[in-house]
Amino acid sequence: MLNFNYSIPTKIFFGKGQIEVLGKQIKEYSSKVLLTYGGGSIKRNGVYDDVVRVLKSEGIEFYELGGIDPNPRIDSVREGIKICREEGIDFILAVGGGSTIDCSKVIAAGYYYDGDPWDLVIDKAKIEKSLPIGAVLTLAATGSEMDSGAVITNMETKQKLGVGHPSMAPKFSILDPTYTFTVPKSQTAAGVADIMSHTFENYFTLNDGAYLQNRLAEAVLKTCINYGKLAIDKPENYEARANIMWASSLAINGLLSYGKKPVWSVHAMEHELSAHYDITHGVGLAILTPHWMEYVLDDERVDKFVEYGVNVWEIDKDKGKYAIAHEAIDKTKEFFISLGIPMSLREVGIGEENLEKMARAAIYHKGGTVGNFKPLIYEDVLEIYKAAL
Amino acid sequence: MLNFNYSIPTKIFFGKGQIEVLGKQIKEYSSKVLLTYGGGSIKRNGVYDDVVRVLKSEGIEFYELGGIDPNPRIDSVREGIKICREEGIDFILAVGGGSTIDCSKVIAAGYYYDGDPWDLVIDKAKIEKSLPIGAVLTLAATGSEMDSGAVITNMETKQKLGVGHPSMAPKFSILDPTYTFTVPKSQTAAGVADIMSHTFENYFTLNDGAYLQNRLAEAVLKTCINYGKLAIDKPENYEARANIMWASSLAINGLLSYGKKPVWSVHAMEHELSAHYDITHGVGLAILTPHWMEYVLDDERVDKFVEYGVNVWEIDKDKGKYAIAHEAIDKTKEFFISLGIPMSLREVGIGEENLEKMARAAIYHKGGTVGNFKPLIYEDVLEIYKAAL
Repeated sequence: MLNFNYSIPTKIFFGKGQIEVLGKQIKEYSSKVLLTYGGGSIKRNGVYDDVVRVLKSEGIEFYELGGIDPNPRIDSVREGIKICREEGIDFILAVGGGSTIDCSKVIAAGYYYDGDPWDLVIDKAKIEKSLPIGAVLTLAATGSEMDSGAVITNMETKQKLGVGHPSMAPKFSILDPTYTFTVPKSQTAAGVADIMSHTFENYFTLNDGAYLQNRLAEAVLKTCINYGKLAIDKPENYEARANIMWASSLAINGLLSYGKKPVWSVHAMEHELSAHYDITHGVGLAILTPHWMEYVLDDERVDKFVEYGVNVWEIDKDKGKYAIAHEAIDKTKEFFISLGIPMSLREVGIGEENLEKMARAAIYHKGGTVGNFKPLIYEDVLEIYKAAL
Repeated sequence: MLNFNYSIPTKIFFGKGQIEVLGKQIKEYSSKVLLTYGGGSIKRNGVYDDVVRVLKSEGIEFYELGGIDPNPRIDSVREGIKICREEGIDFILAVGGGSTIDCSKVIAAGYYYDGDPWDLVIDKAKIEKSLPIGAVLTLAATGSEMDSGAVITNMETKQKLGVGHPSMAPKFSILDPTYTFTVPKSQTAAGVADIMSHTFENYFTLNDGAYLQNRLAEAVLKTCINYGKLAIDKPENYEARANIMWASSLAINGLLSYGKKPVWSVHAMEHELSAHYDITHGVGLAILTPHWMEYVLDDERVDKFVEYGVNVWEIDKDKGKYAIAHEAIDKTKEFFISLGIPMSLREVGIGEENLEKMARAAIYHKGGTVGNFKPLIYEDVLEIYKAAL
């Protein structure tokens, strides 16, 4: 196990009705906030009304930035910063999923930066501090509600890049599973795939001695497998929504990576897909994952796949190593299919036209190689893209 | 899954050599500290020298309170408060295991209380705030390094009671697994039993819908089982010590209980044993646990034992429910035996003489019944004590 410094300062208010704490929590920081949200689903499902009711009852003044896109754009960040500066706002309340929260985090950091906020995404060392932010989560997927990272897309440069800073972690997040009851089946499925992918990225490392963390990762994976289909079939099943929601936070808040040194693979490859084609992130991850697994499977890594197959998929441990590994990968793919996720790039409108360009970009953005479970070079990434077509 | 408010503010500096952050961390709060420790093992194994070197190099003034007993006494708390008040100390640095940290927590709370600190143990509502504390952990067991609770013994009244307040949580804890290399075999074993017991107390609840938390608990249990014997046989095995150390913190920091409502059983029964006989807490827990399990096993609870047996002990799930349950209990007992723990009350000097008195006290201290997995009344507790003789 490697050395680590653990700090997860975000407070979580989990459960039905927790929106009632919102006013008191905000008031520890501010009484003038920027309310950020996405395409407007929160206005249809009542979450917006809940939030506004609480803000008004507590006398908290608020301005709005709606229309934040999935794969949130640097343009929205610029707009948010402008509003905060013009109106003297000193707290950001993100109501939505990872895109809204990510966008809000970079608004919060960009507020204190004189130049264009895209500079911060390119070079996080330029971030010194951020406005405090809070979140009301409406989609279980990215875990942004409990970590300090964000992913922002620049449509002009076709770049989708991650950025993070301790000051960007939400001060608090409200996780009410009933707020995810109206999430469409396809988004629920993509969210589950995203949670599992975060967990895979942290789990698939070599000989790290972090036994406990690996078992915790398996707990998160089993939770996704146990409840993923149920949440799709019975969207108002509280137990399913609650378990998936909490899994989304724990998958990426550090618990699974402290003491390990995972360098992510599939995310780096997927970011190029959604930067170039604006596809749903979780769908891109689900498509690439089984192909990445098959591609990196070899004698050095097979034991890790055996661990995965036996512990997560309960495959008979007396089968041969490679039989277990292949079966585990097949089961992973079958699970994503059972959630209704399209499982080829062509199905989501991606052909051969940009594969080389995207593979080059993935390598470039990661400084030469992608991942460290098995470091991938350009040809590897291209092969995985082709296999996933 | 029940509603919960998650807040684990303690920072953890985990790994070899992390003592070097000590000065900087303390200086965020103070430059005049009370250094607390136990029977002096830290002077023999070099930890005391490490701490003093860092304190001196940072110019931090310190006073000492050594000799804190296992099952720490209210007398030590009184003494610590007196020193802090006399010397104008405003930070407590606990260097040791759970006893030293627990004692320090109540010194920290008692500093701000005008009356006798035993009042606070009897009625935690009297606690308003506490001095900041930090910990350097030397024994993996109680998890006190990352929670806000403490257990204090009053030898005059033969009471051993728990108390807790958010302000009592350490600001930071340094967890260097090499600091546990010199822990004797018997203490290592008792520590592992304590960690497992905390996990059992959180795990054994009925139909809680907290699937994820239950899988996380199994991860902690598997870690104890995987490394417990190894840490005893090879005390300088870093991987074993590291995994057990981190398990000790996660077992009780809230991660396994958030979203559930466990009311602890075996701890309540054990506290009477160590209050009356001053035995090692973890040993008392290990002795009682299998008997408690057998006693509460019935048609309503057998499924939980099946879950435990199949998921933790990998017992064939096609066996009969009760066969799995009994086998899981047997394996639990065999595991404790493999660690060298005496497994009967008589072996640790407890006879029939006080069983009734202790059973009455357990019931009294818990307000009528013990635990909620299966609430136990006086006759139940007495039966379990007798079975464990």
